[in-house]
Amino acid sequence: MRTRAAVAYQAGKPLEVTEVNLDGPRAGEVLVEIMATGICHTDEFTRSGADPEGLFPAILGHEGAGIVREVGPGVTSLEVGDHVIPLYTPECRECDYCLHPKTNLCQSIRETQGKGVMPDGTSRFTTLDGDPIHHYMGTSTFSNFTVMPEIAAAKIRKDAPFDMVCYIGCGVTTGIGAVINTAKVEIGSRAIVFGLGGIGLNVIQGLRLAGADQIVGVDINPGKVEMATRFGMTDYVNPTEVEGDLVPYLVALTKGGADYTFDATGNVQVMRAALESAHKGWGESIIIGVAPAGAEISTRPFQLVTGRSWRGTAFGGARGRTDVPKIVDWYMDGKIEIDPMITHKLKLEEINTGFDLMHEGKSIRAVVEF
Amino acid sequence: MRTRAAVAYQAGKPLEVTEVNLDGPRAGEVLVEIMATGICHTDEFTRSGADPEGLFPAILGHEGAGIVREVGPGVTSLEVGDHVIPLYTPECRECDYCLHPKTNLCQSIRETQGKGVMPDGTSRFTTLDGDPIHHYMGTSTFSNFTVMPEIAAAKIRKDAPFDMVCYIGCGVTTGIGAVINTAKVEIGSRAIVFGLGGIGLNVIQGLRLAGADQIVGVDINPGKVEMATRFGMTDYVNPTEVEGDLVPYLVALTKGGADYTFDATGNVQVMRAALESAHKGWGESIIIGVAPAGAEISTRPFQLVTGRSWRGTAFGGARGRTDVPKIVDWYMDGKIEIDPMITHKLKLEEINTGFDLMHEGKSIRAVVEF
Repeated sequence: MRTRAAVAYQAGKPLEVTEVNLDGPRAGEVLVEIMATGICHTDEFTRSGADPEGLFPAILGHEGAGIVREVGPGVTSLEVGDHVIPLYTPECRECDYCLHPKTNLCQSIRETQGKGVMPDGTSRFTTLDGDPIHHYMGTSTFSNFTVMPEIAAAKIRKDAPFDMVCYIGCGVTTGIGAVINTAKVEIGSRAIVFGLGGIGLNVIQGLRLAGADQIVGVDINPGKVEMATRFGMTDYVNPTEVEGDLVPYLVALTKGGADYTFDATGNVQVMRAALESAHKGWGESIIIGVAPAGAEISTRPFQLVTGRSWRGTAFGGARGRTDVPKIVDWYMDGKIEIDPMITHKLKLEEINTGFDLMHEGKSIRAVVEF
Repeated sequence: MRTRAAVAYQAGKPLEVTEVNLDGPRAGEVLVEIMATGICHTDEFTRSGADPEGLFPAILGHEGAGIVREVGPGVTSLEVGDHVIPLYTPECRECDYCLHPKTNLCQSIRETQGKGVMPDGTSRFTTLDGDPIHHYMGTSTFSNFTVMPEIAAAKIRKDAPFDMVCYIGCGVTTGIGAVINTAKVEIGSRAIVFGLGGIGLNVIQGLRLAGADQIVGVDINPGKVEMATRFGMTDYVNPTEVEGDLVPYLVALTKGGADYTFDATGNVQVMRAALESAHKGWGESIIIGVAPAGAEISTRPFQLVTGRSWRGTAFGGARGRTDVPKIVDWYMDGKIEIDPMITHKLKLEEINTGFDLMHEGKSIRAVVEF
C-alpha cells in the first residue's frame, strides 16, 4: 500500500512529507493507522544529526496513537479495530528483562530496532523508487500508516481521544513513571524537579498524584511557572536569581535536601546539582534527560557514601503493554491532565513547524493529526 | 584517672604510647575498658595527615570491644559489667535519621564528634600536663580506658571473645552490612567485589551468607586468592592479566553484568568499573571505599538511564546498637568467620608495627590486646 509520511532523508534537513510504500504486516506484526502523533525532543535529537546512532533515510516519530487495521500471522493479543499506542520500549513478557522484577527494558527486539528494521531484519517502508527507508524506534509514527511488532503496541480503551493520549506514548509515561515506577515516591515526600518542559511537567503531576508534600520546580525560564503551578509545583526556583550556590539554597528550601530529585534537562551539570540537593542518608536522584553524546556526570563519592542514590529511568520504568493502558485510564478518569500540555495541533504538512515551535520554546507539545 | 593510650600528636608521625588523664563519664556517657582494638585504614588515613578533617593531638582507634566500668548520670541502657562494642556511627533512636527507614546515619552527636569532643563540647582526655587531647570518631579505642556516649556503645553477649569481635566494630559490619543492609542481595545473585582486603573479604562472606550464586573477586594481588576463596569467592580476576578492557570481561563472566558490584578499594577509577560492570536494567553498584580528598567519580549518564544504580554505604548501613549484637551472634553461631582475618596480635606498645604491617600488605587485620 501507499501512505503519506514525513521522511527524514538527511541529518539536519527538514522532514519531507511525501508518499511512500508500506508492506503489510508479517508474522507477529500489526498495521496501525496513526491518528495522532506528538513531536518529541528525541525525534529532534535524531533529525538534527546529534544522535550518533541516527540512521537515514528514516521515518521518525515515537509518540503516537492509532487503530489496528491489519494483523500478521500469529498475532493473538490484538485484532483489527483495536486502539493502540505504539511502544518504543516493547514488552514481550518472555525475555530475561521482562521476567526480571526490576526493569522495563525488554530486549527481545532491541538489536533490530536499533538498526531501523523489523525483527526479521527488513524494513516495511520503501520510497516510490523502491529504496528502503528505515523504521525509527520501532514505531515511525510520522506516517499515516505504519507497521510494528505486536509486542510494541499497547491496547487502550476506545473512548480515549487520540490527539491527547498519543502523548502517553512517551512524555506523560516518562515523567509520571519516573515518579511512581522508578523512584516509588511515598506520600509526604519532598521533591525537586529540574527543568519545567514537557517531561518536567509530567514529573510534577506524577508527584502530585503520589502525594508529595513539596514539589520544587527549577528552571531558568520564569515563563514556565504558570503551567508548572497548575500541575502541582509548590515552589519555584530560578537559578539565575539565587545568590550563591544553587545546591545549598535548594537543600535549605527542602529542609535538608529533597527525598527525591529529578533531572529533566539532559544537562550533566544540572544532573550533578540534582544529586547533591538530594537529602543526606536517603535522597534519591533520578536522571530522565538525555545528555549530549560523550557528556559525563561526576560527583565526589562521599555524596553516595553518605546515603544518596543516583539512578536513571527510561520510558518511566513503565512496562508498556501493562502500564500504558492504566495511564490512559487515569487520564480518562481525571487523575492526570494532558489537554493543557497539547499546546499546538498541526497537519502532517506542517510537521516542520512543530520542530520550530520546540526550538522557540513556544510549545509544550505539538501534535500532528492525520 | 590515668590510662595508657597511643597518642597521635602530629600528622604523619608514629603514635606515642604514654599515660594520659581521663575524666570520668558525664551525663549520658559511659567509661569503657577497651580489651582489644583493631587497626583500620581509616585510622591510618587520619594518622598520615591525608584526612583533611583530622585533628591533633588525638587518640585514634574506632574498632574496639570492651567492658563498661562506670556509667554517668542518666544512663539507662547500659550498666557496669556490660560488654560493648563502641560505635563510630551511634544510634540514638530519636533523631530524624534514626527514625527514617532508609538510613543508619544517626546525626544526634555528629557535630561534636567531628570536632573531636564529647556532646557537651569538651574532651575527657588530657595530657599529663593538662592539655586537651581530641577524641576520634567518638570512640578513641587506642586507649586502655575511654569514654563515649551511651548511644555509641552496642551491648553484646558476654561470651564473645574481645580479640575477634572487636573487628565487628568496623570492618566486618561494613562489609557484611553493605551486602545485607544496603544492597539487600537476593539468593541466587551474581556479584563482583573489587578489592580483596579486609572489607572485600567481609563483603564476600556477606554474599555467601546471602546466598549469592556467583562471587567474583577482583584484585591485582594474587596473594589474596587463597583467603578470598576460603570466604566464598567463586571466581578470581586479576585485572593485570585481562586482555583488553576489564569491564566487558567482567560483563561476559557474569552473563551480562553482575546484579550487585562493590567497590572496596577507594579508587575512583575502580568505582567507575564497578558501576559499569553491573547488569543493564537492574545492576546496583555500592561504593564502600573512601576516596582521596577531592577525587571524583564519573560515568556517562546513559549507564544510569539504562537501569544501573550507583549507591554508597557507611558502616554497612547498620544501626549499631540494633545490628551489631546480631552480627556478634552470627559469629558465635558460626554463620560468619572472623578468626582467619585476625592475622596479627600486638601489644599496645607495638601499635606502630600494626600500621607497618598494613602498609606492607602483610596483615588483613592486626589487633591490639590490652
